[in-house]
Amino acid sequence: MKVIWNNQLVERSAVVIDMEDRGYQFADGIYEVIRVYNGSFFTMDKHIDRLFTGAKKIDLTLPFTKTELQKMLSDLIQINQIDTGNVYLQVTRGIAIPRNHVYPDVANVSPVFTASTTIVPRNQEKMNSGITAITLPDTRWLHCDIKSISLLGNIMAKNEAYKQGKEEAILYRDGKVTECSSSNVWMIKAGTVYTHPDGNLVLPGITKMVLLEVARKAGILVKEEAFTLEQLKSADEVFSSSTTAEAMPVIEIDGTAVGTGKPGPIVKQLQQLYLDAVEAQCGKIQ
Amino acid sequence: MKVIWNNQLVERSAVVIDMEDRGYQFADGIYEVIRVYNGSFFTMDKHIDRLFTGAKKIDLTLPFTKTELQKMLSDLIQINQIDTGNVYLQVTRGIAIPRNHVYPDVANVSPVFTASTTIVPRNQEKMNSGITAITLPDTRWLHCDIKSISLLGNIMAKNEAYKQGKEEAILYRDGKVTECSSSNVWMIKAGTVYTHPDGNLVLPGITKMVLLEVARKAGILVKEEAFTLEQLKSADEVFSSSTTAEAMPVIEIDGTAVGTGKPGPIVKQLQQLYLDAVEAQCGKIQ
Repeated sequence: MKVIWNNQLVERSAVVIDMEDRGYQFADGIYEVIRVYNGSFFTMDKHIDRLFTGAKKIDLTLPFTKTELQKMLSDLIQINQIDTGNVYLQVTRGIAIPRNHVYPDVANVSPVFTASTTIVPRNQEKMNSGITAITLPDTRWLHCDIKSISLLGNIMAKNEAYKQGKEEAILYRDGKVTECSSSNVWMIKAGTVYTHPDGNLVLPGITKMVLLEVARKAGILVKEEAFTLEQLKSADEVFSSSTTAEAMPVIEIDGTAVGTGKPGPIVKQLQQLYLDAVEAQCGKIQ
Repeated sequence: MKVIWNNQLVERSAVVIDMEDRGYQFADGIYEVIRVYNGSFFTMDKHIDRLFTGAKKIDLTLPFTKTELQKMLSDLIQINQIDTGNVYLQVTRGIAIPRNHVYPDVANVSPVFTASTTIVPRNQEKMNSGITAITLPDTRWLHCDIKSISLLGNIMAKNEAYKQGKEEAILYRDGKVTECSSSNVWMIKAGTVYTHPDGNLVLPGITKMVLLEVARKAGILVKEEAFTLEQLKSADEVFSSSTTAEAMPVIEIDGTAVGTGKPGPIVKQLQQLYLDAVEAQCGKIQ
């Protein structure tokens, strides 16, 4: 299988990451996961825009233009023959010796760019049945808008859910629900859809952005407003959203059924609207 | 130069980190920096204890016993002939494919352990003159007690200080001073020494632990109590503490001199007491 390593398509086995790559020692880097349907990228522009925005926030000069990146990623999915899958890409600040917290001079250090593909079918079964979740305090940092590889807080939360036999952790800070460990979170109450507004406490999800757009176009009432843990627990419907899981119903929280305990009508409608948007860009989904 | 890679002493050039090492994709790992004086480790036991405590906090099974680690590190500094320097070591959860937030089954994945040495002389000149600092909101996560490689929040703060031509960032959360971007922080007021108590907001620094011990033995009044940004700014003396910098006077904060603008008598006394402790373990420092 081919991957991208420093702007070149190479064999996966050829890639060597240095033990003093700042990504490895400081989590000094950012990443994206982009979805491929029918051999075409979905919302690639938005992912690339977010990568560039994140790079700016951490003073990282990316080693490519947006057009160059787009071309490299397109070549990668073509050569790996990805029909339905993900591209994972990350850029770190590069190899800097000796280890030093301060960012190295860009004249001396080149960012390290890697990208790989995975075949990931749409999980229609799970989208139909929904997932279970627990709630946990959000103990992550205050720059959750940056899609950085500094993810230990996220994976600890996700793992806590799995330890308890559940699939996702819904996080809250100061009583307000923020997002999940690797997705945005939404609730529906009396026909209105709520999700936390963008800002430093949540990732500006691309799937969230698409859902907001299609929901509003369809005349669904949407409010980008933070809601409390209590509101979450009395919601009619709850769902999470992410690149891979699309709009994913949450049917149980902390052992208690959400609404009827089955995916509700509005999340089902949003799933269909999202699928319509996917098909408009990538063609009919079988 | 030799390094340790998965419990073996190998040439630095032989080490290959995988692009799907969870340390590289999720910052899923912990680290230590241990000081060497006169070819001997200082407070090695305490660093190793902290590593094992951190591993437990993130459910990471370390690939060695304390005794085995001690032996490997001793061999490393001997073969690299380190007289005065640092050992940097880190352990990540290992290579897990495909990428998944959930911790992989320990039966399938081996942690990746790397360690290297750097010659780092004591910076006596800087310890005599002191450093300058800025203050910044502490935007890091709420598990700062874990010495993890998830350090982007730390390095952003450190870099902000450097951008402003200063050397360290003193962080505060909810009005209380927590620590610096890569060291603990202390203030002295009317003869009493204050530092933030251990807990989830600060790293339980080994240098801090030693300083607390020697200060108390010497009859200096020490309080492990959080202090406010205002108290910091009206302190008689301020200093930071870390493995490499020992007790480092802070002589300027946000452009204003601390006390007389020169290292004060108590930090000087603490520097000497710390050096005494070093010499008791590692022999006379030239």
